[in-house]
Amino acid sequence: MMFGKEIYATRRAVLRQSLREGVVLLIGNDEAGINYADNTYPFRQDSTFLYYFGLSQPGLYAIIDAESGEDILFGDDASIDSIVWTGPQPTMRSLADSAAVASVGTVEALKEYLKKVMRAEKRMLYLPPYRPEHKLKILELLRIMPWEVRHSYELCHWVVKQRIYKSDDEIVEINRACLLTAEIHERVIRETRIGMRESDLAAIVCKMAQEHNFALAFPTIATVNGQTLHNHYHGNVIKEGDMLLLDAGVETEMGYAGDMSSTIPAGKRFTQRQRDVYDVAVAAHLAAVNALRPGVPFESIYDLAAETIMEGLQSLGLTKGNAAEAVRLGAHALFFPCGLGHMMGLDVHDMENLGEVYVGYDGRPKSTQFGRKSLRLARPLEPGFVITVEPGIYFIPELIDQWRSQRLFTDFINYDKVEAYKDFGGIRNEEDYYISRDGAILLGHKIPLTADEVEAARN
Amino acid sequence: MMFGKEIYATRRAVLRQSLREGVVLLIGNDEAGINYADNTYPFRQDSTFLYYFGLSQPGLYAIIDAESGEDILFGDDASIDSIVWTGPQPTMRSLADSAAVASVGTVEALKEYLKKVMRAEKRMLYLPPYRPEHKLKILELLRIMPWEVRHSYELCHWVVKQRIYKSDDEIVEINRACLLTAEIHERVIRETRIGMRESDLAAIVCKMAQEHNFALAFPTIATVNGQTLHNHYHGNVIKEGDMLLLDAGVETEMGYAGDMSSTIPAGKRFTQRQRDVYDVAVAAHLAAVNALRPGVPFESIYDLAAETIMEGLQSLGLTKGNAAEAVRLGAHALFFPCGLGHMMGLDVHDMENLGEVYVGYDGRPKSTQFGRKSLRLARPLEPGFVITVEPGIYFIPELIDQWRSQRLFTDFINYDKVEAYKDFGGIRNEEDYYISRDGAILLGHKIPLTADEVEAARN
Repeated sequence: MMFGKEIYATRRAVLRQSLREGVVLLIGNDEAGINYADNTYPFRQDSTFLYYFGLSQPGLYAIIDAESGEDILFGDDASIDSIVWTGPQPTMRSLADSAAVASVGTVEALKEYLKKVMRAEKRMLYLPPYRPEHKLKILELLRIMPWEVRHSYELCHWVVKQRIYKSDDEIVEINRACLLTAEIHERVIRETRIGMRESDLAAIVCKMAQEHNFALAFPTIATVNGQTLHNHYHGNVIKEGDMLLLDAGVETEMGYAGDMSSTIPAGKRFTQRQRDVYDVAVAAHLAAVNALRPGVPFESIYDLAAETIMEGLQSLGLTKGNAAEAVRLGAHALFFPCGLGHMMGLDVHDMENLGEVYVGYDGRPKSTQFGRKSLRLARPLEPGFVITVEPGIYFIPELIDQWRSQRLFTDFINYDKVEAYKDFGGIRNEEDYYISRDGAILLGHKIPLTADEVEAARN
Repeated sequence: MMFGKEIYATRRAVLRQSLREGVVLLIGNDEAGINYADNTYPFRQDSTFLYYFGLSQPGLYAIIDAESGEDILFGDDASIDSIVWTGPQPTMRSLADSAAVASVGTVEALKEYLKKVMRAEKRMLYLPPYRPEHKLKILELLRIMPWEVRHSYELCHWVVKQRIYKSDDEIVEINRACLLTAEIHERVIRETRIGMRESDLAAIVCKMAQEHNFALAFPTIATVNGQTLHNHYHGNVIKEGDMLLLDAGVETEMGYAGDMSSTIPAGKRFTQRQRDVYDVAVAAHLAAVNALRPGVPFESIYDLAAETIMEGLQSLGLTKGNAAEAVRLGAHALFFPCGLGHMMGLDVHDMENLGEVYVGYDGRPKSTQFGRKSLRLARPLEPGFVITVEPGIYFIPELIDQWRSQRLFTDFINYDKVEAYKDFGGIRNEEDYYISRDGAILLGHKIPLTADEVEAARN
């Protein structure tokens, strides 16, 4: 599945105009072997390659020449042997046609082409090699050692500047991902039961994605230990008094992602202790969502969510002192050690491979403070951005022990009280928003958020 | 999940005794990024690493010193930052203990260690780098360029010689994989219906695997175009008159695989044309299975299956002449262009990364004939082997056109008749067997095989 070919031609023309000079080498992804070369993970094309060419086949390379205005697609046609194993494949010529590319060549021809470019001492631009195969290809094609690889910051800058603003076509695709993602969350919220294994719920996610021929946008988190932010273990049985944290999303055939989180009580209702903390998390979520609009720095919305958490936990006796001051100094990171959200598009953390500082900070340096340094997005919001909002409250025993032993932020944290929550787990709710001209639009459809809504959905 | 630690200690002792000299460097697998480094595919440890150490964490290295008798495990302990994201992790020391390894070190320490080994001019032995990350690590650790990497054939030889004979403990694990694999096939045979998408059936496979916390042993094939041997497209709707070819299997938490195939009519019954060809495929399957016993070269069983196919198709008018002669010359490969089966264990194609010629041919050269060259296993069977048996009959339009235009094997093939089968698709049935002292034992449990059995299971 692709957009109309003129979309790709236009995107490449915009990039050429931005760059003005240099030759861009885009390296498509290869199949990735699991335990031997031919037993492969599901193929996923590089997102920037998808953005400019829309082609989701392994083994492709592309040249975008900002000087000559030429685009060339490189790759090898399938042999009869490979047709026997993998079926008839489109020719390189037909692939190029579907992306409005005039010229094609073999991988051998690419090598010759690059030699000529290097002899002519033109500037070669390439993106950061986030897969080991990219490093090897740069080594073999350009004779640059892995530790000498210098990707082009300028290229990253201009690619981000294009990909960061989602077109209407892209919003339709992202919304398709979000609709199924929301449906999956509703199903899991309804079906979670005491006695199930975490893997039973992860299985619902993979089944619903697979039925639609969608991939998972990221490894599913379905855990009773929600305090571990990226917990991919699914071996626990859900017990009375547990909460299941589901963080799951799918991506469409074109690669556009959805990403939502829900926190679900094991029984029909949250316990009182759970509900007290859950209500604080929801308050932070709603405060953040209500603040979304163009011009507002996302970091200030992060501050708002963090302050709401610190104030809310104060009413439970867990924190004390001035919430804004606590957040400024970083005390909130005991409960909220991660960011508030991130860009979303062709990647669930959109363009993370191009450099978070360009994507989320527009080149400004990031904080080094624990917690705040994990904020992936800080820059002022702009129309066309697609972002997630996902504040959370986490009780991480190892972190509590470490901070307490180091006597950190004793002005703001009542460690004696916090001690009693070391078995609490974690809470996160997450929605996806499109920043419009004057506000923000929820993507997909609304899923149960407040404790009342979640409990109602389970009864 | 691991075996008892003494099992790993013994396996390493056997390898050291076989090698007598040299220092083995085993490189464990890393996380593999999908579309950026931190969005990862499900982690899978290297199988040889699993065999000798049983540890399924990313970022590990191991030394097995055949001269000093020392084993060392290298890797870095988790920081508090990584505990926040991925939860508490076992220390390197406790990992080493669970594999009965006395010494541990950091990745930095490995670099120093390897420098010493190289200065002492000891022989360094390592396995073929089937993942790009392995090549990069060899480059960085041993300063060997990717195109200069020379893995140790001797090491491959001895590792194969150990891994090829499955212990009773391993058979129990493989059988666990086969039991669930059989259950999945029975479910799909029962539930396949006209109007479903291929992806609906692939979804059943992933759900049942995930519910048990098992991984897929390989990408699921669930296709109405069974003539394409490794067809991973799941977008077709199943129509009246189609057959669905399911080739799917799971692997246990320890990494042991199951691998079975079924061919299922879209409706309640096979059509007469389907059944006629299906019966030939089943006859080939049963002939092969009945021939399994120690001492019999698997290549001769392949010949037997191929001859059974050529004879059976003769009764349908598709072939002519002497079947044995046709198989000797390679004419059967029009219908049966692949092998009859393969070793199975910690990999679904067991040890494929170590070199098929060692695993399946005991070092003898392979045939270069089309079809026969795809035979992964030819050597005489021995007690302790675990293998698959999977003859098939395929009508591949592109191959038929090519052979016909080249007038290949016109003494054996009635192309006019074959032409009418270009829309037929493909048939494969596959079971897994353990070669015992005097015969072969079916692993998992029996699933419907004959046309009558398949139809009965669907009614």
